[in-house]
Amino acid sequence: MSYALDAASLSQLFLSARTHNVWLDKPVTDELLTQIVDIMKLGPTSANCEPVRIVFVRSVEAKARLKPFLSQGNSDKTMKAPVTAIIGYDLKFYEQLPRLFPHTDARSWFTGKPEHIQETAFRNSSLQGAYLILAARAMGLDCGPMSGFDQAGVTAEFFAGTDIKANFLCNLGYGDASTLKPRLPRLSFDELAKIV
Amino acid sequence: MSYALDAASLSQLFLSARTHNVWLDKPVTDELLTQIVDIMKLGPTSANCEPVRIVFVRSVEAKARLKPFLSQGNSDKTMKAPVTAIIGYDLKFYEQLPRLFPHTDARSWFTGKPEHIQETAFRNSSLQGAYLILAARAMGLDCGPMSGFDQAGVTAEFFAGTDIKANFLCNLGYGDASTLKPRLPRLSFDELAKIV
Repeated sequence: MSYALDAASLSQLFLSARTHNVWLDKPVTDELLTQIVDIMKLGPTSANCEPVRIVFVRSVEAKARLKPFLSQGNSDKTMKAPVTAIIGYDLKFYEQLPRLFPHTDARSWFTGKPEHIQETAFRNSSLQGAYLILAARAMGLDCGPMSGFDQAGVTAEFFAGTDIKANFLCNLGYGDASTLKPRLPRLSFDELAKIV
Repeated sequence: MSYALDAASLSQLFLSARTHNVWLDKPVTDELLTQIVDIMKLGPTSANCEPVRIVFVRSVEAKARLKPFLSQGNSDKTMKAPVTAIIGYDLKFYEQLPRLFPHTDARSWFTGKPEHIQETAFRNSSLQGAYLILAARAMGLDCGPMSGFDQAGVTAEFFAGTDIKANFLCNLGYGDASTLKPRLPRLSFDELAKIV
């Protein structure tokens, strides 16, 4: 049986963690991105379907391909971020289920059901995007997730010739905490939850 | 600047954490559920929109209301779980934006745009559901998330008279690790990610 994480870990993951928009000039290595993926991919998905597909946009050339599709408010900070992850989802994810969920014919749950495919891929890739955010924080990075961009444009530019669609973006790096404003308010427990 | 969490914390959150189906006879208190919500609600959402709405189903009476809407494979384990969280999303979330994102008129981004409302609520409530899973693990609980249930039925039973829709379910409690089977395989880094 497990106990609560220590205060410093809870702080790093949630309590003091903030969305960052200004980045220190410190690179994010291949090794660290690989470690984060190896951690986040262990998070649960329905029938182990793992629909997320991620492009880590890091080079100057790849950032230039991304730039035309960003909303005005997201452009400058994204160009300056060490890495921008494109979190996508593969609408053909169910073709992998004979390998990923081998004890039953889970592929047949999806074949010919485009609405169920879309909903499952979108829900589970969003869960996996959240696992990415928290795995990155767990490894000492800061995050800046964004949904203000041209999804169709990013899909065409980065996922051409596939069945992968863009879901959201997340800048990754080491944030400049001196630039943070006070945290925005949150709903109260009673506004967002109840126990019955 | 932060460093990686220690190995025990990474293990509890991701590396050794597993989806549980068999539960120890140990209750989950109001205090612990409140702590978990206070932690998970700090996770980022777009424009701080916070669309998630959660019902923690714990009493025998409330479990009986949930039972008719569960798929056969999810019924018994859910009836035996100390708590089942219904993770929902409020399609009227944007009415709170003048308070939650006060420096601009973010409400107008959504008014009269039902597709944008649905997509934003579904994506962000899924992110928040993942934050719930990881906050629960961080506080020492085990999770059993599920999407096999009658969404419309749960919505009608638990969210009648509101604009809240059910997204997914998550059993919460202390799992019996002795019943776990080996972890299912995961896609390789190269299958789910690339660095450009």
